[in-house]
Amino acid sequence: MKIEKNAEIIAVGSELLLGQIANTNAQFISKQLAEIGVNMFYHTVVGDNVSRLKQVIKTAQERSDFLIFTGGLGPTKDDLTKETIAEIIGRPLVINDEAMASIERYFAKTNRMMSPNNRKQALVLEGSDVLVNRFGMAPGMLLESNGCFYMLLPGPPSEMKPMVEQEAIPLLLEKFGHNEKIVSKVLRFFGIGESQLETDLEDIIDSQTNPTIAPLAADGEVTLRLTAKHADQDETKRLLEEAEAKIMDRVGEYFYGYDDTSLVGELVKACREKGLSLSAAESFTGGLFSEGITNISGVSSFFKGSVVCYTNEMKNSVVGVSEQTLRHHGAVSAECAKELAAGIKSVSGSDIGISFTGVAGPDSQEGHPPGKVFIGIAITGKQVLSFEFIFAGTRSGIRKRSAKYGSYLLLKELENE
Amino acid sequence: MKIEKNAEIIAVGSELLLGQIANTNAQFISKQLAEIGVNMFYHTVVGDNVSRLKQVIKTAQERSDFLIFTGGLGPTKDDLTKETIAEIIGRPLVINDEAMASIERYFAKTNRMMSPNNRKQALVLEGSDVLVNRFGMAPGMLLESNGCFYMLLPGPPSEMKPMVEQEAIPLLLEKFGHNEKIVSKVLRFFGIGESQLETDLEDIIDSQTNPTIAPLAADGEVTLRLTAKHADQDETKRLLEEAEAKIMDRVGEYFYGYDDTSLVGELVKACREKGLSLSAAESFTGGLFSEGITNISGVSSFFKGSVVCYTNEMKNSVVGVSEQTLRHHGAVSAECAKELAAGIKSVSGSDIGISFTGVAGPDSQEGHPPGKVFIGIAITGKQVLSFEFIFAGTRSGIRKRSAKYGSYLLLKELENE
Repeated sequence: MKIEKNAEIIAVGSELLLGQIANTNAQFISKQLAEIGVNMFYHTVVGDNVSRLKQVIKTAQERSDFLIFTGGLGPTKDDLTKETIAEIIGRPLVINDEAMASIERYFAKTNRMMSPNNRKQALVLEGSDVLVNRFGMAPGMLLESNGCFYMLLPGPPSEMKPMVEQEAIPLLLEKFGHNEKIVSKVLRFFGIGESQLETDLEDIIDSQTNPTIAPLAADGEVTLRLTAKHADQDETKRLLEEAEAKIMDRVGEYFYGYDDTSLVGELVKACREKGLSLSAAESFTGGLFSEGITNISGVSSFFKGSVVCYTNEMKNSVVGVSEQTLRHHGAVSAECAKELAAGIKSVSGSDIGISFTGVAGPDSQEGHPPGKVFIGIAITGKQVLSFEFIFAGTRSGIRKRSAKYGSYLLLKELENE
Repeated sequence: MKIEKNAEIIAVGSELLLGQIANTNAQFISKQLAEIGVNMFYHTVVGDNVSRLKQVIKTAQERSDFLIFTGGLGPTKDDLTKETIAEIIGRPLVINDEAMASIERYFAKTNRMMSPNNRKQALVLEGSDVLVNRFGMAPGMLLESNGCFYMLLPGPPSEMKPMVEQEAIPLLLEKFGHNEKIVSKVLRFFGIGESQLETDLEDIIDSQTNPTIAPLAADGEVTLRLTAKHADQDETKRLLEEAEAKIMDRVGEYFYGYDDTSLVGELVKACREKGLSLSAAESFTGGLFSEGITNISGVSSFFKGSVVCYTNEMKNSVVGVSEQTLRHHGAVSAECAKELAAGIKSVSGSDIGISFTGVAGPDSQEGHPPGKVFIGIAITGKQVLSFEFIFAGTRSGIRKRSAKYGSYLLLKELENE
């Protein structure tokens, strides 16, 4: 469905302007509203200050016709949202009996004295649909005034989130009805830069209107969000598949998964499906790869563990890299990566061994610059492989990308099985 | 000092309006600018849309005189920030040689093809102070036009954050001069909850005006930010020390460090100072502790490595935990924690061995509920210790807290040496 409104979120609270907290409320609300087809055009944050709040509301009224407020519904003096809106649209505040009753129940239940300023929380803008607050005292509300809609939500995420999901969304769907279905799908790519991906797909992205295609780069990955709208759900599905096919045709080799999956998530899936046990030897990644795998529950069925061999001594004594290799080729070498992968495979008795050796920086090592990385992969019955990279970026960036490349390379190897 | 400006952050990116990411950039920038006395009055988010971006800039020009932009400096078509500002203030874009050179270096270094749209990133607004981007390609900039200041920052936090800290803040201080000195200091505590800390310090926090004391809880730690203002730097220093003494008197036992340090950072410092080598045996933490240590550069001088023994098989075969212990006490036991700590210490030939075994969840294990954790510490010449905990929270929360407690416990042990 599509709600033909230009929406804007106005978050009220000085703590946001001081940087004490991030505006995660706006993210949550935007995501929820996007799913029912609301066009979100602006987010605004303003402090607990009446005159600036007024100014912000007036600006919003000129450019948007659906204003969503979060914060400033509490009992204290600096909670001004309701009062300010009431003044601007000339709508009185009236006691809401249901809200008042639930506030009284709350105090009875917690055996706390109800202070007068708590009554303030039961006030709602006259003529508004009240959104029940199941996890706090301040009710939310939705009302219309001169063709502009105002939705007021509490600031605490624990109260706001359930109110949006259980109260606001159903009410909006009921009020504004359905016509178009919006379906969105994320394609995840690795091993290709954002600008390269966009260059490869330029004509498709530019010509595409339904679905729209939006690239986003984060943590060395690039995603494409495809968003299709149509009254007929099967048609939206067809539109998405059509566009996806075109994209895969160009850059499919870098594709690894859909929506909220991750490289390590896909690797875990692949190992489980193939029933292959895995272990790792990590030098400069220092446990980053293993930590990522074990952050997923239930991996002990196939992940045996790893050795973080930060010194040559441990590479040799625990993983069994030969002294000759360390002496002649050094720890940062294809040979060492291969011996580490094969070594951890046999030490742990796994089907697969993966290894990481390289220079995280800031200093160079064995004459190699920061970013020089070797990844080794040993799979039973296959030749031991090593892959060489030169990564740019910070120490932690180099480590993270290396761990991701490990998952990516192994994933591709398993796909080719 | 105080920068007499009304500041507004304008974050540009449709991904923010779709709720794909939260506007954490605005939080970071606000926090940094608050510390040098900038008044932040608004945050605005707008999509990758020229006409709406123009409208937002015009609105901002009317109410603010310091506009900070983040995002939209990238190489792709939907990166429009520079171009739009150039048009509005009538300032041409010119190639910045330094930026172009560093972009070419980047591609040379990573052996990647430079696509034409990357050149776009070397364009800066004529007459602006360029903010060097050490971790990406798009340079930032600061310029003045008709009494209004414009600061342009890249969107990716890994590029924006160091640019703000290392380039923007010093430039702003230099440009806008000083009057009152603001000095702020953070005290870090672990092992005490925020509410307990606040209760213990309530009267001090309430009565304190200069310095102000602001508690903040994050990742199981509590910090107190002391912020003092005075024309005389020595006086600000004295005010801070006075307040700190009062605080330490009450809750000093939970204090572990100042400002941006971390538990693991303090542990690294302690091991270096005492010249003690360290290694770890990690079961349910899966490498989290080791990853934290090795994320700090130069630790190979004392950190030998670790074994992530995710299976009992590896606990026994690689770290040498006895089969009897695993059979009679189980892997989640004080006995196993001790044998793991002692085992890794001898396997790696280190002075200190630390171990983590427990249940991360969501399922219970060996009859223990999620959150049941044992940490073992073996130090040469001292009795092997084990510590038992029951943590609440998510799988990843339990793992993180356990790794932090490991650093904390070992730190306290080394302090008592």
